Amino acid sequence: MQADIGLVGLGVMGGNLALNMAEKGFTVAVHSLDWPAVTAFVAGAGELAPRILPAKTMKEFADLIRPPRPVILLVPAAAVDAVMKSLSEVLARGDAVIDAGNSDFHETERRQRDMVDDGIMVLGVGVSGGHEGARHGPSIMAGGPVQAYRMAEPVLTAIAAKYEGEACCAWLGPGGAGHFVKTIHNGIEYADIQMIAEIYGLMRDGLGMSAAEMAQVFAEWNRGRLNSYLIEITAQVLETVDDATHKSLVDLIVDRAEQKGTGRWAVIEAQRLGVSAETLEAAVGARVLSSLSQQRATAEKLYDLPRHPLALDRAAAIPKLEQALFAGKIMAYAQGFAVMAHASEQNVWNLPLATIASIWRAGCIIRSQFLDTITETFRAEEGMLNLLLAPRFVTMMKDNHQGLREVVSHAALAGLPVPALSAALASFDGYHQARGSANLIQGLRDFFGSHSFERIDKVGPQHGMW
Amino acid sequence: MQADIGLVGLGVMGGNLALNMAEKGFTVAVHSLDWPAVTAFVAGAGELAPRILPAKTMKEFADLIRPPRPVILLVPAAAVDAVMKSLSEVLARGDAVIDAGNSDFHETERRQRDMVDDGIMVLGVGVSGGHEGARHGPSIMAGGPVQAYRMAEPVLTAIAAKYEGEACCAWLGPGGAGHFVKTIHNGIEYADIQMIAEIYGLMRDGLGMSAAEMAQVFAEWNRGRLNSYLIEITAQVLETVDDATHKSLVDLIVDRAEQKGTGRWAVIEAQRLGVSAETLEAAVGARVLSSLSQQRATAEKLYDLPRHPLALDRAAAIPKLEQALFAGKIMAYAQGFAVMAHASEQNVWNLPLATIASIWRAGCIIRSQFLDTITETFRAEEGMLNLLLAPRFVTMMKDNHQGLREVVSHAALAGLPVPALSAALASFDGYHQARGSANLIQGLRDFFGSHSFERIDKVGPQHGMW
Repeated sequence: MQADIGLVGLGVMGGNLALNMAEKGFTVAVHSLDWPAVTAFVAGAGELAPRILPAKTMKEFADLIRPPRPVILLVPAAAVDAVMKSLSEVLARGDAVIDAGNSDFHETERRQRDMVDDGIMVLGVGVSGGHEGARHGPSIMAGGPVQAYRMAEPVLTAIAAKYEGEACCAWLGPGGAGHFVKTIHNGIEYADIQMIAEIYGLMRDGLGMSAAEMAQVFAEWNRGRLNSYLIEITAQVLETVDDATHKSLVDLIVDRAEQKGTGRWAVIEAQRLGVSAETLEAAVGARVLSSLSQQRATAEKLYDLPRHPLALDRAAAIPKLEQALFAGKIMAYAQGFAVMAHASEQNVWNLPLATIASIWRAGCIIRSQFLDTITETFRAEEGMLNLLLAPRFVTMMKDNHQGLREVVSHAALAGLPVPALSAALASFDGYHQARGSANLIQGLRDFFGSHSFERIDKVGPQHGMW
Repeated sequence: MQADIGLVGLGVMGGNLALNMAEKGFTVAVHSLDWPAVTAFVAGAGELAPRILPAKTMKEFADLIRPPRPVILLVPAAAVDAVMKSLSEVLARGDAVIDAGNSDFHETERRQRDMVDDGIMVLGVGVSGGHEGARHGPSIMAGGPVQAYRMAEPVLTAIAAKYEGEACCAWLGPGGAGHFVKTIHNGIEYADIQMIAEIYGLMRDGLGMSAAEMAQVFAEWNRGRLNSYLIEITAQVLETVDDATHKSLVDLIVDRAEQKGTGRWAVIEAQRLGVSAETLEAAVGARVLSSLSQQRATAEKLYDLPRHPLALDRAAAIPKLEQALFAGKIMAYAQGFAVMAHASEQNVWNLPLATIASIWRAGCIIRSQFLDTITETFRAEEGMLNLLLAPRFVTMMKDNHQGLREVVSHAALAGLPVPALSAALASFDGYHQARGSANLIQGLRDFFGSHSFERIDKVGPQHGMW
């Protein structure tokens, strides 16, 4: 019996992907450096065990797979190069390595070049959905040689999440396109999560709500246009009570958020491309600030400034908070998709934006009703420069910017930080302003550096008479 | 007669530096690819011409300089590698190339490594002050081999700006430390300029003030604690009237700001280091947005939203705007210096933060009274984690945050974009908050990704019972 596909790395994600593949009827060869873990994994696979073939060595592993071999890698980022090197010694021309970890897309492109001489293709695949997604259906974003994708496509589409019957899996472009799209997905995820946390902070500190009260509001919102996995689990996290203390668990969690780096990659790429992604940047910045808990505690004592309740009663505030969150979400997605549009142009990837939105509708962490709206919008107008220019988005922002505006305004007066929501509002107000204030910047730059400026009534570079 | 120093590149900056050196009594060999430009330059140097020795070839150039030779480069960034290669063929062991252009500090470090085999030292030097500074005294930030700095030190300190008799010139550390500090200088400059432009926008669109009226306000502010080169020239730019149209020149300038990339480098480095530099990021983002004039014009038509005047009368608003600008400036500098502190630690540069603040007090674009406060603060406490924790800064922020708060709040309601000021406020409010809202983020991350969290009442990583 030969395996349809191979998988190296049996951590939570890799193990769950293997079970998912076996469940869908595929035979999977598995290998990891930790042989006892491999045998334990197979032993624990129950009725799926017959379709999981353990391999003790790389050589055995390769021999178990039917050529041309598709081999999925789910190993820590730091181990990818070493594993690829070992694989290159046992694989043959025409085989494909499918890196399904969170690799930097620049690294993926380097690896594609490195393996060219051996005739081994490298596919860079973003997988979103956490461990549950890996087991029961993640969103799969593939990039690299299309022949490599075709080899793995039957397996990948079978294990992917389904949205109304469509597999949330696609080949998105050559080179590092897949890992790049996953990076931007994560940047958007950071922004989504950060804005939820800001709204939570306003409810807690500005409206004096308990976690249980907030859970009800988020659950209610999840029945409306904010319907999404993240809003759903926010309600669940907020309603969870600690068994031992009988307190709301969220109140016992330390307020120091960690990050694995993909959000940071997203904003660095946005900067390199020269695209505005302020809402995503603010979210990354907020995680950094959260990690400085010692400094924050010292600063709170040194400053000793009062925090005020929001100058709104709860009943009036809740709908405004919902509007603010929705408007902020629109800005985050508009910026994320603008980054992808620019990257697509610069790298000649021809990223299918409608398809990207469509495969995020199920399986991944940011899945939401809203992504259906984005899918439809891009399907109607594929070449759009910015979602904010699409008629449906114009209507949505017109209906909701006022809530965002009032929330940012009240939060500023109350002393409650809303970095991502403020950034969303400032970029919206800058975006629909035909005449900004950068004319003064150009005047100053010409004054001190002779950089020249353009005039509204003349053609070509001009200098001031200073 | 042999030259004390050589200079390659006779653009505006290079030419002015050569004249500056000659005026201080040094003999300078000059070279450029454009020989007629070299002879024209010497011919135009008047009484300084005898101390400027033109060289037609690189070989002649090297022969003109007394060994060990210090050679300053002021050529476009794209030409640095080619010029260094030519120089390496004519220079000898122990000579030093001093790159005084705006090079990326990573490139500077690569060049230092590249030249090691030839025994040629590379000093990376940031020069700020525009063309006037180059001619009459710039701020000079040097990094690289200290022996190379010692060779050029008499010339560099002589040509540098002076602040109360002290030369605004220093060796700041090994490797790319000099160019790195210049990069952060420019990032801060972006933020300073952006916040001035935001205040200008509020005066223009929110208070209906004319350029001439604003010029008076900025001139008045320049006599107070905002006293700085940038505020001074803002008043001058605003009061400038176009000869032909008799209109205020600033009203005729296109509102599309350009950038040469150093601001972007600064925020990318902050991201890489994992430091919050939101105010600087917002400033870079605003320049990007300003460049999308076509989209902004389209969006203004599509959205057709009213802009409101600020809900403040002018007399009440002006002092609040001044407070907001000062508080925003504090945040920008606190963030810029925090980035340098982290980079210093990570790169083992041991950056002298007090010295950096001190050499920015004259010559450079961001020179200001405020930098004297920063210098004194770091001299008193060199190891400070963040300026915001210094007693004097606590007092300043306590006295001024209310103005920033009200300005951001009113701007949000009026529909006027203040991205950098909002970012400054949000990071301030996040910084002096001992208990933030990232506990919810950690709850969510554990829910979907089993990433674990810490609890306030237990030790070690925990998981939720979801």
